[in-house]
Order: sequence, then C-alpha cells, then structure tokens
Amino acid sequence: MYISKLFIPILKNNPSEAKIKSHQLMLRVGMIKQSSAGIYSWLPLGFKVMKKIEQIVREEQNKIGAQEILMPTIQSSEIWKESGRYEDYGEEMLRIKDRQNREMLYGPTNEELVTDIFRSSVKSYKTLPQLLYHIQWKFRDEIRPRFGIMRCREFFMKDAYSFDITDEDANFSYNKFFLSYLRTFKRLDLKAIPMAADTGPIGGNLSHEFIILAETGESKIYTDKRIFELDSDDTELERNSLKSLREKFDEFYSVTDEKFDKKEFEKKVIEKNRLQTKGIEVGHIFYFGDKYSKPMNASVDLPGGKKDFVKMGSYGIGVSRLVGAIIEAKYDEKNEIMKWPISVAPYEVSIIPMMNKNDTSSLDKANNIDIELRKSNIETIIDDTDENLSSKVKKMNLIGAPYQIIIGKQTEGDLLEFKEIGKEPRKIKIAEIIKILKEQKAKI
Amino acid sequence: MYISKLFIPILKNNPSEAKIKSHQLMLRVGMIKQSSAGIYSWLPLGFKVMKKIEQIVREEQNKIGAQEILMPTIQSSEIWKESGRYEDYGEEMLRIKDRQNREMLYGPTNEELVTDIFRSSVKSYKTLPQLLYHIQWKFRDEIRPRFGIMRCREFFMKDAYSFDITDEDANFSYNKFFLSYLRTFKRLDLKAIPMAADTGPIGGNLSHEFIILAETGESKIYTDKRIFELDSDDTELERNSLKSLREKFDEFYSVTDEKFDKKEFEKKVIEKNRLQTKGIEVGHIFYFGDKYSKPMNASVDLPGGKKDFVKMGSYGIGVSRLVGAIIEAKYDEKNEIMKWPISVAPYEVSIIPMMNKNDTSSLDKANNIDIELRKSNIETIIDDTDENLSSKVKKMNLIGAPYQIIIGKQTEGDLLEFKEIGKEPRKIKIAEIIKILKEQKAKI
Repeated sequence: MYISKLFIPILKNNPSEAKIKSHQLMLRVGMIKQSSAGIYSWLPLGFKVMKKIEQIVREEQNKIGAQEILMPTIQSSEIWKESGRYEDYGEEMLRIKDRQNREMLYGPTNEELVTDIFRSSVKSYKTLPQLLYHIQWKFRDEIRPRFGIMRCREFFMKDAYSFDITDEDANFSYNKFFLSYLRTFKRLDLKAIPMAADTGPIGGNLSHEFIILAETGESKIYTDKRIFELDSDDTELERNSLKSLREKFDEFYSVTDEKFDKKEFEKKVIEKNRLQTKGIEVGHIFYFGDKYSKPMNASVDLPGGKKDFVKMGSYGIGVSRLVGAIIEAKYDEKNEIMKWPISVAPYEVSIIPMMNKNDTSSLDKANNIDIELRKSNIETIIDDTDENLSSKVKKMNLIGAPYQIIIGKQTEGDLLEFKEIGKEPRKIKIAEIIKILKEQKAKI
Repeated sequence: MYISKLFIPILKNNPSEAKIKSHQLMLRVGMIKQSSAGIYSWLPLGFKVMKKIEQIVREEQNKIGAQEILMPTIQSSEIWKESGRYEDYGEEMLRIKDRQNREMLYGPTNEELVTDIFRSSVKSYKTLPQLLYHIQWKFRDEIRPRFGIMRCREFFMKDAYSFDITDEDANFSYNKFFLSYLRTFKRLDLKAIPMAADTGPIGGNLSHEFIILAETGESKIYTDKRIFELDSDDTELERNSLKSLREKFDEFYSVTDEKFDKKEFEKKVIEKNRLQTKGIEVGHIFYFGDKYSKPMNASVDLPGGKKDFVKMGSYGIGVSRLVGAIIEAKYDEKNEIMKWPISVAPYEVSIIPMMNKNDTSSLDKANNIDIELRKSNIETIIDDTDENLSSKVKKMNLIGAPYQIIIGKQTEGDLLEFKEIGKEPRKIKIAEIIKILKEQKAKI
C-alpha cells in the first residue's frame, strides 16, 4: 500500500501537549486524534494495532474455554441499584436520562449486567462452570483525563466473568485466567508481572494486577526481582498444573502500593532482590464470591437439591491501553525509533524506494518486492513520496514496521538492503527476507 | 463443541412478546437477551453470526479501498452546533451531560465527527479521494423500540464517508459503495435492491436505500420486478464500468414510499411488471456535497491554488439489523427451520448422536467425526444432551447450522446420515461430506 494513499496524518514535530512518549508518538504518527477531553478517534494506523491486540486477547480467552458475548454500552440503573453500587460508584459513572426520563448509564464495568444475563438463563450446577467475556467500549468519567489513551474516558476493554458453585472451582477458573493473561502478554512481547492488589470498587478478597514496568506508569510496585524470571511455558490447562503456576508466582513478594507493607517486604526479600519502581496496569483479575450473586439473587440448583448463590470472578484487560503500554515499553524516544512486536505491528515491512524525477526504476522495484512479500502474507507499506531517503527512513522509524527494505544507490541486482528497524542493514535476496519474516511470525 | 458446555439458553416455546419471526427466533434460541427497552446483549450464538456479518462487510469495504478507523461513541455537542444539526436532530439523539456539565451526546451517526477528523488532517487535493469507514455502536432513542434488534436503540452499524473535490469524482466514490453494497449483500445470500430514497436528516439530493423483500418490513416499496434479475457480476472497480452498473439499475423504476409517484410508476412500468410490497432497509447511501464541509469549513487546496469545500457522501449498513433481516428472509416459521447462509452460520454442521444409557458408541462416533471436520476447518456443534433424537433435530433446526449429521440406528459402518437442514438425508462417507462443505464454502 502506498503511504500517499493512506490516511496517516504525520506531524513534523512532537506535539507539545503530550507528556508521555506513547501519547507523543500516537499523535505524531496519526494513530489517534482527540475528539474531546479524554475521548479519541482511532485513525487507520492506531486502529490496525488495536485490532491485532484485540484478536490476540480474543484467541487466548477462547483457548481457556471462555465464550464471547457482547453486552451493550448503555445500561439501566435498576441492576446497579440491586447490587448496591449505583450510589457508591460516584461521579466516574456517566449517568444519562433517556427521553422517557429513565435513569441509564454508560457501563464502566459489567458485573451487574452479566449477573442479570446469568440468572435469567442458568438454573443448574450442571452447566457450570461458565466463563463469559466481551470486548466492548466502556466509559469512566475521569475528572482529569490525561496521557492520551492511557487515562482516557472512553476506552476499549476485555472483561470476562466466571461462574462456579464452590470456592475451589472458582479458584480453578481464576487460575485459568491467570494463565491466559501471562500467555496473552507474552504474545504481545510484554513482560507483565502479576502483583497482589486491592480490589477497589469491584470487591472481593483475591486480586492480581498485571503490570509492566515503565517509568511513566501510574502504579507503584514493590517486588522481588526474581519474579521476572518466571514463566508459564510448561503450564497446562489443568487444575493441578495451574495451582503450581499460582504457587510459583506467590512465592515471591510482589504487590502494588495499596498492599505494600514495608516490614513484610524487607523480611521476605533480601536487599539485592528488592525492586521498587513504577508500572502500567494492563490487566486486573478479581475473585469476589457472591458479592453480586447474593443481592441480585443469582443462584443455581446444587447436586443435593439445595440452591446456592453462584461464585463469581471478573477479569479485565485494557485493550486500547495496551497500545500505549507497548509504546511505553518499546519506543526508543531518544533515537525516535519504534519497533512494534511483529504480532501487532501495523505493517511488517516498510519498503523505502529512493525517488528520482524521470526515473521510476526504484518505485518499480518496490512494487515488485511488494507483490512478492504480499504473496507470502507479509503486510507492507511503500513510501512513494518524493521526500529524500533519510527523511523517509526517519518517518518509517516512527511508524514502526519492524523491518525495512531500502531501495537506493546501494541496491544492486538481486541483493536488497534489508534491516531490522534501527539496526545495521545487510544485503540479501528477497527469498531470504521472506524466510526471516516467516520465522519471526511463526513465533507469535 | 458440546452444546451442554455452551451458553445457548433455549426456550421451549416462542416468546409471546415477539411479534415478528426474527425476534421470535432470536429469543427462542438465545441469540440475544433484552437488558432494557430497545437495548440487547448478544449471547454467543447471536454474537457469532453478527461477527461473521461484520467481517464480510469489512472485507467488501476494504476491497474498494476504504480505510477502517474507529470513532468514539460519545461526541461533543460542539461539532453538531457547527453543522447546525444539534437542535434539528430532536429527541432521538441521546443527550448527556458529563461531570463537568459539558453537553455531550451518544453518536446517532458520524458526519460531523469524520468531517472534523478530515479538516484537521487533509489540506490538499493530492491525497484525495479518501474513503473512511468505521463499524461502531450507535444510539437512537426511538420512542417505541420494537421488533427486537430490528428497531432498537443501541445498534451496530458500518458507516463510511467519502471525500472528493469534484461532483464527478464524488459520484465515482458513490458508485464504488453502490457496487460494494451489492457484493456484500450477495455474500450474505440476500437479494437487496437499491431504491431511490429520501435523504431525511442526513441531507443531499442523491440517495439509495438497499432493501430486501419481507412481509414484516417497515419500508413500502414500488418497483419494476425485472430489477431483481440484475446483478453486478461483471462490474469492475473502474469509473466507466461502475457508471454502467448505475445506469443499468436506474433504468427500472424502483423507489421507496417517500419518492413514490403513482402516475410515474404507471407510466414507466407496465402492469404485469409492477410490484408494490414491503421490505427491510439494510443499507442506505447518500451524496450531499458540501452540506457538512461548508459550515464546518473543511476545505482543501485545489490544483490551481484556490480552495474549495470538499464534497462528501455517507454510506451505512446496519450490521446488527442484518442478523434479523437474514432471519426474516430465511426462516421457515411454519416448519420451524432456520437455514443460515453458510457465510454467516454460527456453526456449519450440527452432529446429532442418539444417546443411550451405558452405551457411548454414538457419542464416540460423533467425537471422531467432529475431529475430522475440524481438521478441515469446518465449524461444528455436537448435541451431547440425553434428549431423544427427534427433539434434538428440532432444536438444531432452530439453531440453523445448514448441515446435519445424524448418528442413530440408521448409521452403519462408514456411511453417515447427512442432510441439508430440512431436506431428506442421504448416506455418504465423511470424505464426501467434507467435499460438499468445502465446495459450499468456496462460493462465499
């Protein structure tokens, strides 16, 4: 695709209103455009990245047996009055009156609505567990929206809900999501660490935030460095294997601010392993038992004939926020180089021909390479503008396709100047390039 | 997938509140659940169908060179005041005050917001045409929501916008969408006819509604029967070819109620070709020139150095409504048989084993068939419940996978009882079944 035909409005300089690098880059390369305070439109470049993240999140939810649904954005206040949260939620809830003067609201989260769906449909323990999720826009009326899409008002979130009859089963469901989150963030090439966290307005007594390290993060964290070496590679979707995974992580002290206890930290973590830093919350999981099912009367028949309130958990991933979080983690601000993980890159290869008046040979070559790459399902962008080669490379360094092919004076015969973004170029044939790309993509 | 593990809450009887067959079926097989008046949650079965429709709509937009973006649901009133529609729009617009007391609204359509995006980014004719689209939730506060998701308040819509500098170019853009709509509806196995229509609150002087015939439709139409024989199979994405396509359709009288003129109808259409009936609007396209660009000052530099307001059109498809429209077109209410077009079917094959206590041989066979079909990327659902065979078939007739494999007493050796839903079964081998399914899917 020619960049001249794409809707990618690039700014010459960093916008002054942006305070953190994800916000800067997203405005700079036209990934988003603010429409009002804390509310953004996603332009083609940003949209492509967000959609790829959404798809990875979806696939990992499906793999643990969660079923996708879609709840509406506008909810009735009635169910929130049943749960008791309508008054509690405060001014962050966007409250609306419709033309019939009914009290409605824009969902900030969906515990009530999903409990209502569950109670009207499920009557027996036999069809449990149920894991339901949706990926939908939410609204929280932040008093001071800031940092672009990192702390905005309208945001795109995956929220899942589990329904079980015993604490043990509910824990099994919780652990499935725990694993699914580690896998999801890994595919996004992020090291997200689960930290024991407060449950806040969601409620319950068990909760983990998944946090990636970032100077610009708003979460303070206290952790044992060694937790970064853990992985979930050998874990299976099976009760005991998941239990071991949880235990492996629980061994290391790792908490957010609200859970921090200095004495405990110093007792449990020897000095050289202590890490106090900041991070970005990209996921949050909760177990809250019957906090919603009890007031909303969501019960099922048990094996013996009795009834009991169903035990629930909820599990969120900030899909739109992850776009910013990946930039915070990957953007080399000093050298103005963004390398998107290939799993979510808006384009996989940028083709940068040197343009000469009256000589289309470089562009012709670019077109031929483009055809070859697309035959192998490699996503490309061609910079067909008449800027000079160095400013085109700079632009492509910001757009962030992880690989570049430069077609200039150095290009001779079959050998192409190919480079990983920000690295030194090497001269190889197109077949070799395709091989490298395929290998990279196979790892996703 | 076992039906016992899925969240498909099926009702024994037709719900009494539903007046039209799409609403009946969607409640009956648990595709949707109402959460408040005119607002629905999409449960797994309904969600799967809607997602497949969305993807077909997306692919056909991409094929004509439209670029996908995503605008937010909540908009500021300011841009609507600029265009002059804030007061005009009336009570169907859901108006909201945020915590800072700013006037906001839930977007019923996006002409203003997309014009705002365009004017801040595009300055020159050189980057035109631009075709932008998004697929996003909209809200229209209907006074009397009814017919389930056919006339609801929160609905899922694809809306596209074109930007050009001359009327001729703008017409070319309009015709691209005209073609893309014919192709989209064809892939959904719907015969949707473009009818000259009023432009209503969108404005402009050129407009077509795409309408499918249905007794329960709310649009009255007057048309020449012969228009149903036209197709776009030979049309190419090229100026003259598209012009011919439009001319071919324009030859036949075909209008909605508001455009109807009895005299003209009787003059242009001989009696035996006249058709007066009802239909469902599934798409609507508009050309309105500078209606928004002028008051909102969206202009570009022209080749000679002058500036002019950009010429715009907009193009909508009701993605959520199409789920209902397909049911209205395809559901055999009398025999309670729904056959989904394979392009959007929630499952492609239902596997229906006869269950016996102490004998799992049918279920084992079902599992083996399931594995074989899934190897060929065929989507399956297994009815593993212990209901009798005839009620399982009835249930699967409602769920609507277009093909069924019944494993009962008639099943001998390699020969499986395979049938197109509602038709007579025949006994064939699994390899033959896979061949049939692949052929059907290749046509999409």
